[in-house]
Amino acid sequence: MNLRSRSGQLELREFYRTTLLENVVPFWFPRSIDDQYGGFLHCFDADGTLIDSDKSVWAQGRMAWMLLTLFNTLERRPDWLAWGRSGVEFLFQHAFDVDGRMFFHLTRAGEPIRKRRYAFSESFAAIACAGLARATDESIWAQRAIELFNQFVTWNFTLGRMPPKFTQQRPMIGLGPRMIAIATAQAIRADIGDDPTFNLWIDRCLEEIEKWFVRDDLQVVMENVGPNGEILDHFDGRTINPGHAIEAAWFVLEEADYRKDSRLIDLGCKMLTYSWKRGWDQEFGGLYYFRDVHGYPVQEYWHDMKFWWPHNEAIIATLMAYQLTQREEFALWHELVHEWSFRHFSDKVHGEWFGYLHRDGRISTPLKGNLWKSFFHHPRMLWKCCQWLG
Amino acid sequence: MNLRSRSGQLELREFYRTTLLENVVPFWFPRSIDDQYGGFLHCFDADGTLIDSDKSVWAQGRMAWMLLTLFNTLERRPDWLAWGRSGVEFLFQHAFDVDGRMFFHLTRAGEPIRKRRYAFSESFAAIACAGLARATDESIWAQRAIELFNQFVTWNFTLGRMPPKFTQQRPMIGLGPRMIAIATAQAIRADIGDDPTFNLWIDRCLEEIEKWFVRDDLQVVMENVGPNGEILDHFDGRTINPGHAIEAAWFVLEEADYRKDSRLIDLGCKMLTYSWKRGWDQEFGGLYYFRDVHGYPVQEYWHDMKFWWPHNEAIIATLMAYQLTQREEFALWHELVHEWSFRHFSDKVHGEWFGYLHRDGRISTPLKGNLWKSFFHHPRMLWKCCQWLG
Repeated sequence: MNLRSRSGQLELREFYRTTLLENVVPFWFPRSIDDQYGGFLHCFDADGTLIDSDKSVWAQGRMAWMLLTLFNTLERRPDWLAWGRSGVEFLFQHAFDVDGRMFFHLTRAGEPIRKRRYAFSESFAAIACAGLARATDESIWAQRAIELFNQFVTWNFTLGRMPPKFTQQRPMIGLGPRMIAIATAQAIRADIGDDPTFNLWIDRCLEEIEKWFVRDDLQVVMENVGPNGEILDHFDGRTINPGHAIEAAWFVLEEADYRKDSRLIDLGCKMLTYSWKRGWDQEFGGLYYFRDVHGYPVQEYWHDMKFWWPHNEAIIATLMAYQLTQREEFALWHELVHEWSFRHFSDKVHGEWFGYLHRDGRISTPLKGNLWKSFFHHPRMLWKCCQWLG
Repeated sequence: MNLRSRSGQLELREFYRTTLLENVVPFWFPRSIDDQYGGFLHCFDADGTLIDSDKSVWAQGRMAWMLLTLFNTLERRPDWLAWGRSGVEFLFQHAFDVDGRMFFHLTRAGEPIRKRRYAFSESFAAIACAGLARATDESIWAQRAIELFNQFVTWNFTLGRMPPKFTQQRPMIGLGPRMIAIATAQAIRADIGDDPTFNLWIDRCLEEIEKWFVRDDLQVVMENVGPNGEILDHFDGRTINPGHAIEAAWFVLEEADYRKDSRLIDLGCKMLTYSWKRGWDQEFGGLYYFRDVHGYPVQEYWHDMKFWWPHNEAIIATLMAYQLTQREEFALWHELVHEWSFRHFSDKVHGEWFGYLHRDGRISTPLKGNLWKSFFHHPRMLWKCCQWLG
């Protein structure tokens, strides 16, 4: 299976499709459906035993979006629609605080446990609403998707709106809100159609990423910089997250493809290349979680662990980069990360991927789901790669 | 070198003393002294290169206390007093917010970067003031130690005072504030003399730890419980921190020795025993960072790493437990943890211990100092063991 021939591509497409439908979907469903309270349970041990009944608000939105996306693009299975709708309805019943902002962590019945400073819950709820709008043609969900998107960008990009984690002594801006704004706008646009708002936000975030985070002089994509792109020579400022930057790279390539913009192809490929070279572990294979831009020790002591999500994002990014450029190194990297990931993350017994490996690929915790890992990054990779190989 | 004979004890005492004075103190001093702004620099790479000039407020208080304690109990070196005073003065010049609470993270010049919800900065500043009071006989520092102690306990133990991390849906109380209240009261008492306030707080915290956190039915010391000691059957509620509980155990044993209270000897030895059995890694040696009380996977993916501080605390706790009971298992555990720790954490080239190892003892990051690791746990262990073997 490799990207260099049409037959290899079709074989690969079949592998991703089969893994999605016969290995990953059956691990999560119907197991995660909460018949009692609605929404999704997701804190599962390796064999699918529920070990925490709490619910992540991210997971509710992400799992609903993923199910509805499979319904909208792959196969119109009534269960997928019903489950996706249940996730969205659970969010509107339980996940909003009185100030209109969303919580982060709920009990099984939907009582709030924790709210965060930041507003990623809103972005995942927005795409779930967009998926439901497309699946049902009910215009209320399109309207809610737009409202939640606006709430997400207002919260993230209005100076002084979000309570700061640090004082204003050393202000920092992050890649995270910019890449998530792009991906959220893209996902909503795909489901409810074009709207100038989305493209304006995508333009702005692409420009800011290129201007402030992509550093040609250092061949790096920064994770956090000063308000004018300055590198802050302290632990936090120097810490880069190659997997995150690779995920951002494929959002850029997605936009390049949508707009047929070769300049954006170059930008996305550059972000992938810089981050791959910084992040790929030459000794054990796989992608490091954190690196220091100057090669100093990273303060996060688990910096060299291999997480499931950067590997999924790298499989997508290398595939897209190859499809858009036919450059040999991207096919090679795709093979490397595909092979390493399926060898180390796959649970051959119970299906789905493990989430957290040590540097050498040994399993650290066999959890299949928790407040961060659910039915999202892995199935999204399998689905997205099928789309690009289709 | 073992605890079972007087000659073994003297040999061990000499080893700890030499390591402290010839290996650990020279790594940190005069390197960490900030001649320009006062206080301590502490973010060092393995070889002592400064890789971040920021200052931890914890580190300022802890390093000042440690230096002043060496001055007060070991040798009256003028440098130690001058450096300790410089740390305390830096705190009073820079580390207090306008509301009287202390910051957590400062720039080198002392500008605030971050304040936390919780108030451990205050506890470490309090013991530094007490150390300075004893070293100088200047009564202002004793007064400030008491004020800071009161601020620490008021903040931690007044219902509703600390901004909550979670909603009140599932309230939790922690071992942390209770054990630190005990240790802080003990350290201040040692330096400025007895005071009923300290003993009242120690009594209260000992009682709460025994009643709510030490569970004989499960043979465990819990890290967080419900407000009446309930085990909360979710990731956070089930996660135990054996190294933390072992540290708490020696604070209890210290109090047992001070009060000549055999009931407290039993309590401390029980806490040590439960936590050792849960925390010691039978396969690779060393103490796991986190475990799940019911044996489920832990949500923290770096749960099986070996950190320097729990190993220092376990060396102290096993030594104290043996000295107080002469029970063979404590001598055996002391040997085990002493041998494993010095073999894996010691930097044979540059001195001092590394802080963060993988489960199998390989170094994860070679940092010697950061916002959490400074001149504290390791020299405190060496000093405390000398005292108990003296």
